[in-house]
Amino acid sequence: MLRIIAKNFIKPEQTAKAESLFRELIAASLEDSGCLEYRLHKDAAEPGLYVFIEEWADRESHAKHEASEHFKRLFPQIGALAAKPGEALFLHDEVKGKK
Amino acid sequence: MLRIIAKNFIKPEQTAKAESLFRELIAASLEDSGCLEYRLHKDAAEPGLYVFIEEWADRESHAKHEASEHFKRLFPQIGALAAKPGEALFLHDEVKGKK
Repeated sequence: MLRIIAKNFIKPEQTAKAESLFRELIAASLEDSGCLEYRLHKDAAEPGLYVFIEEWADRESHAKHEASEHFKRLFPQIGALAAKPGEALFLHDEVKGKK
Repeated sequence: MLRIIAKNFIKPEQTAKAESLFRELIAASLEDSGCLEYRLHKDAAEPGLYVFIEEWADRESHAKHEASEHFKRLFPQIGALAAKPGEALFLHDEVKGKK
């Protein structure tokens, strides 16, 4: 089990371009082996803040995702639209709560 | 749609007691109306860090959850075991990605 919370801080004037790239990344990543969740959220309170909530079957499937053509191609393009580096939290253990 | 990421910073020596309270809170909250996800994660890299990932049907169902007997009773008990105040991120919009 691997759950990831990944924040992206996109320049407000670049959000439309970033969302186009995000959509392409999401569509491809949902087909990656071991991808259990790959959802992108934003909050009106902080323009440019995009938060991925992901779940991967294991570390290996996430590593393969990061080595995929779509990730290696799109992630740098999204990074070029960022106001500052992103932040990621990797959670390897679940206490309880699946519904 | 409302997604919440809530971090709890529990004193390392109080994690066993906190996990017992978390389990009771989770079991009751999963029965709350409009609760679509209520999962608690931790990461070995930062002892005492517990992260809820929640999803609620709407703001109203989350407000009712916070007004519930179980939340009002257990949340302060968990807070008393914390090393510092928790942090919560409320995400009201989804770009894409539901699987």
